[in-house]
Amino acid sequence: MNQKQLVGIEAASYVSDGMIVGLGTGSTAFFMIEELGRRVREEHLHITGVTTSLQSKVQAQKLNIPLKSIDDVPYVDLTIDGADEISADHHGIKGGGAALLYEKIVATYSKEVIWIADESKLVEKLGKFPLPIEVIPYGSKQLLHFFAQKKMAPTLRQRQDGEILLTDSGHYIIDLHLGQIDDPKAFGHWLSQLTGVVEHGIFSDFVTKTIIAKGHHIITTDVKKEKN
Amino acid sequence: MNQKQLVGIEAASYVSDGMIVGLGTGSTAFFMIEELGRRVREEHLHITGVTTSLQSKVQAQKLNIPLKSIDDVPYVDLTIDGADEISADHHGIKGGGAALLYEKIVATYSKEVIWIADESKLVEKLGKFPLPIEVIPYGSKQLLHFFAQKKMAPTLRQRQDGEILLTDSGHYIIDLHLGQIDDPKAFGHWLSQLTGVVEHGIFSDFVTKTIIAKGHHIITTDVKKEKN
Repeated sequence: MNQKQLVGIEAASYVSDGMIVGLGTGSTAFFMIEELGRRVREEHLHITGVTTSLQSKVQAQKLNIPLKSIDDVPYVDLTIDGADEISADHHGIKGGGAALLYEKIVATYSKEVIWIADESKLVEKLGKFPLPIEVIPYGSKQLLHFFAQKKMAPTLRQRQDGEILLTDSGHYIIDLHLGQIDDPKAFGHWLSQLTGVVEHGIFSDFVTKTIIAKGHHIITTDVKKEKN
Repeated sequence: MNQKQLVGIEAASYVSDGMIVGLGTGSTAFFMIEELGRRVREEHLHITGVTTSLQSKVQAQKLNIPLKSIDDVPYVDLTIDGADEISADHHGIKGGGAALLYEKIVATYSKEVIWIADESKLVEKLGKFPLPIEVIPYGSKQLLHFFAQKKMAPTLRQRQDGEILLTDSGHYIIDLHLGQIDDPKAFGHWLSQLTGVVEHGIFSDFVTKTIIAKGHHIITTDVKKEKN
């Protein structure tokens, strides 16, 4: 069993009957959704899933996990999602899979958020992983120019075929290559103010538990939630 | 000549040969674009228009005003646009015509911004006019609930046929009925942080000149630009 599978299955054990569960996106969340599908099928677990991307929606539908929109549930009990980087003080970068907007929307209305990752995602400070920014296509060249002037080494994300990547909402992704983000919360606030920025990949004050694979072990850490 | 026509024609006189001109949206900007079309046709004025909505694009195309995207010009020399409210200290509310996002994007890259309005739009403080917020459809019911809890009397904007209004970018508009906004800049910052909010209708530090119709007169005021 690989590390992603290990933490995916472990996280799924926190889901109990009757829960409304936010289903993350990405290669680690994939194993969590597979395990929830198994529990629905074999253990007759009753849950309602709220998906964070077209990708996780298609996977959950195949597994016969009942789904609702975030707008058709009162709240989410628990969201389980991956992260591209997790800092020592529990900020995260997400959006490597281009699903950061819906991931953040679902996390915003979740009582508990578990991040699952292999140990390669743990960092002292965020910023080695390129920071994804979801932007409006109209004006995106101007924004690229602006970020370049700020020495943030922006790149417009493309698909493998070379076309510009469109998110599930029809926006573009600009990746900033920052090296290190000293104050993730303040930097996120600054990004939010910029015209044309829809959302950014810094997740602060969301996570309540991390489940990390180190070698063959699982390290589970409870995080005090300081939500605004 | 009505007041909107009066200020529309006056504002168009600030446009000179060779300029890149941001073309606003709405019933007052309409007359400015008509006048620019007349000057292009009769005076052989050479300009490049940058539109802020599908509506102003269609109008400008009919008038044979050459157009470019905001991403295909280095900057905009002058943007002329209407406003739904203008406060004594030159903050504005825009978005009654649902074009606030592209209007703000074009204004962001403009050296000068003229607002044109009839005197009914002048207020001591902003907030009597409902404040438009452009939001992501996914999670919009949750946001409506959140704003309602904050006693901001939110309504989801509909078209005349009762369908939910979609912006040119495919988003929804939530109108907040606030009565009075004491600190527009701080409130705009707060709104920008909210997950699911794409853009808000408070325009601070954009306008460099206002042209207001009072009775049959025109009052022109230069505004010191304090752009961030």
